[in-house]
Amino acid sequence: MKKLLLLVCSIFTSISFAQTDEEVLRTIYTQSLTNGKSYEWLDYLSNKIGGRLSGSANAEKAVVWGQTELEKLGLDSVWLQEVMVPKWIRGEKESAYFQTNSETQAPVNVCALGGSIATPSSGLKAKVIEVQNFEELTTLGKEKIKGKIVFFNRPMQADLITTFSAYGGCVNQRYAGAMEAAKFQAAGVIVRSMNLRLDDFPHTGSMSYGDLPNDQRIPSAAISTNDAEKLSDALKKDENLEFYFKQSCEQLEDVKSYNVIGEITGSEFPNEYMIVGGHLDSWDLGDGSHDDGAGVVQSMDVLRLLKESGIKPKRSIRVVLFMNEENGLRGGNKYAEEAEKNKETHVFALESDAGGFTPRGFNFDCSDANFEQVLSWKPLFKPYLIHYFEKGGSGADVGPLKNDSNVLAGLRPDSQRYFDYHHASNDTFDAVNKRELELGAATMTSLVYLFDKYGTNPLVSAKELKD
Amino acid sequence: MKKLLLLVCSIFTSISFAQTDEEVLRTIYTQSLTNGKSYEWLDYLSNKIGGRLSGSANAEKAVVWGQTELEKLGLDSVWLQEVMVPKWIRGEKESAYFQTNSETQAPVNVCALGGSIATPSSGLKAKVIEVQNFEELTTLGKEKIKGKIVFFNRPMQADLITTFSAYGGCVNQRYAGAMEAAKFQAAGVIVRSMNLRLDDFPHTGSMSYGDLPNDQRIPSAAISTNDAEKLSDALKKDENLEFYFKQSCEQLEDVKSYNVIGEITGSEFPNEYMIVGGHLDSWDLGDGSHDDGAGVVQSMDVLRLLKESGIKPKRSIRVVLFMNEENGLRGGNKYAEEAEKNKETHVFALESDAGGFTPRGFNFDCSDANFEQVLSWKPLFKPYLIHYFEKGGSGADVGPLKNDSNVLAGLRPDSQRYFDYHHASNDTFDAVNKRELELGAATMTSLVYLFDKYGTNPLVSAKELKD
Repeated sequence: MKKLLLLVCSIFTSISFAQTDEEVLRTIYTQSLTNGKSYEWLDYLSNKIGGRLSGSANAEKAVVWGQTELEKLGLDSVWLQEVMVPKWIRGEKESAYFQTNSETQAPVNVCALGGSIATPSSGLKAKVIEVQNFEELTTLGKEKIKGKIVFFNRPMQADLITTFSAYGGCVNQRYAGAMEAAKFQAAGVIVRSMNLRLDDFPHTGSMSYGDLPNDQRIPSAAISTNDAEKLSDALKKDENLEFYFKQSCEQLEDVKSYNVIGEITGSEFPNEYMIVGGHLDSWDLGDGSHDDGAGVVQSMDVLRLLKESGIKPKRSIRVVLFMNEENGLRGGNKYAEEAEKNKETHVFALESDAGGFTPRGFNFDCSDANFEQVLSWKPLFKPYLIHYFEKGGSGADVGPLKNDSNVLAGLRPDSQRYFDYHHASNDTFDAVNKRELELGAATMTSLVYLFDKYGTNPLVSAKELKD
Repeated sequence: MKKLLLLVCSIFTSISFAQTDEEVLRTIYTQSLTNGKSYEWLDYLSNKIGGRLSGSANAEKAVVWGQTELEKLGLDSVWLQEVMVPKWIRGEKESAYFQTNSETQAPVNVCALGGSIATPSSGLKAKVIEVQNFEELTTLGKEKIKGKIVFFNRPMQADLITTFSAYGGCVNQRYAGAMEAAKFQAAGVIVRSMNLRLDDFPHTGSMSYGDLPNDQRIPSAAISTNDAEKLSDALKKDENLEFYFKQSCEQLEDVKSYNVIGEITGSEFPNEYMIVGGHLDSWDLGDGSHDDGAGVVQSMDVLRLLKESGIKPKRSIRVVLFMNEENGLRGGNKYAEEAEKNKETHVFALESDAGGFTPRGFNFDCSDANFEQVLSWKPLFKPYLIHYFEKGGSGADVGPLKNDSNVLAGLRPDSQRYFDYHHASNDTFDAVNKRELELGAATMTSLVYLFDKYGTNPLVSAKELKD
């Protein structure tokens, strides 16, 4: 009986070894869509833990949860990697309104930008000057700006097809608006939310004062797109209207936190590392389901799906749940520093940080030869409607691993709805579709499988295959 | 001054005539995303009119609205095409529960299937027999089925990538379940909703008794996927549990309704017709935003976008808002009959009836030569992430126009979320994303532009281009 069992096992192993790539991908997608864990994990992370800003109690809960869940998967090792992270707290809920001579106060949906200082405890009230960009600030000069609240109101460009391009064309207002306006002694800054939709949600996000001395820093907040439209209209009628906002946010001392890492050790090339990851921290307004709970649970499921699909990787595959992508990138930087210190060769790194929507493909930061290799796999992905394979870009957390020979990649889901939720209180679990999330996990797993099988050195892998 | 103006106009015209296809598509997409009407129209159709089942007062309101809006567009003609449609009414809200010996009544989310008869006015209560398919019915036979409620519980297959394939594999339970179960003298039929998600929404849809005599017809209803799971679990514990449902729906006499049609008459080949359409009727539980309000407003916007983009079609382009796709296809059949009667040559017909989600491409029912022609346009669509061009299938309403030489097509949006909403009370305006809807309208307009410019006879169109 024992012999028979061994025989059966060995036949099974041979069959599974003989599977074509088409069959392996079919197994991976079926596993994810019928037996995936990503959605259940996301439910917990979003609904039981919630928003998890770096340095917060929730972020630490998420670390413990991530480690615990990875330990259940029977990986070869799971550990925490210590990293010091900034701790910014929002304080009391913000409030804002604007007021014309003739009208009563019009309430405004507002939130402090991450990294901003507070207003005076009684709030800040001043006239408003609306601008579209930094060039306008220079043209207006200190005379027109001093003592006023600068209102950056350049909308995202609606006719760009990829919404990340539209975001890229606007986000300097949020990130550097206060730094630039402070040069002209503005009293504060408000920014139109980075959102293509007209609605009432203010969207937070990181901002920086650069090397501006403390006494020159000014408070900076985002207002909803609907309120930006209303305020702009009101300013056309009364340029002397006053805007009021109050926020009590604060930048505290750095605190200790962690990247969470799990590994399946490679059977043939254990010293070649391939990683897949998302970021465990999120903004605090919603529960960070799309940004980046989705990327976290998809990355975790990549390792689980490899195991469930009977794939024994030749290279060491790690899942990395990065801490502090949103306001510091300390986790991504730390991981790359440690990799260099430990002389770990990272041949491949994939990040999912563009929402849990239907996957369309990947961006690649790699050599032309590697990209040709990727394009040769395109037909394998066609049954899954994965069609987008483009050079350029990967993910913020994996970026620091870049060298001349490795491959960095970023999952590219459909982007149309992403900025409806990004950094806002409606980035919640109910906005994620189970199948869309699971298709993303399967698509990532498939790419990891192929890069593990064929390697990231197309010449060597051609030789490997012949041998 | 007048001469100068004429000169300027003539230069402008020449420039616009000299636009490359790439430039024309860019114009169309920009128009739709920055100045589209589809979303505003859908808001009205969904929120001011609402669900519009054939023969209902709302359906007639939708006809008047469609005609009125098309008349505002300055088309060459707008008219109504009379068609007799079935009138089925739901009656009072349905109710259902199941009850085991040991337990209290467990309420069930239920809705009558379109076309079903009512239960007795006091409801129908009987034991339940769960089956997966019609073969099981035959195996069980009359002895096991007679007097019971047959519960069809075959779920949609989750590992199919296109959800329409999963729907296709299940929908015979809904459409023909009562007809088949009645052969074995079942008392009634309940069907697991056609929904890949586990939730509490029952999904209606059409069913048929075929040529079953009236006295053999049995009532048929859908229950939510969550309730299907609960009922199936309960049956495993107690096969003698009883299920109760009550519905008061009724099939009335046919009533008069209309297809709504608008036309831009072709400048060179006015007797060659190209149509684009969706269906104006919907089920009654939600407001029919995805099915098929989206297709209606996108089709209307195709003609508007052609005009706004300065395109003067060579062929006659019609928008057709079909009546009664859901439970009869009378509008689609009528349109084709009239076209034949009037000897109108329809060279091309495009339908949008798969939801207002991000467009991925099209299916085509056409010759190989026409399909090759389509594939040659693929690079034009790449900037818009439109990648899916496959042979086979088009749309229900345009199907009757099929002949040996024309091209039928169906827009294919991302399908992952479609069956979360399909025929259920959550198919509402808020489930539609503005950009996704507008991208669909632009994608349809682009295809219409290309088929108008190059024709549907690849050999002739090559000659046309040379001349």
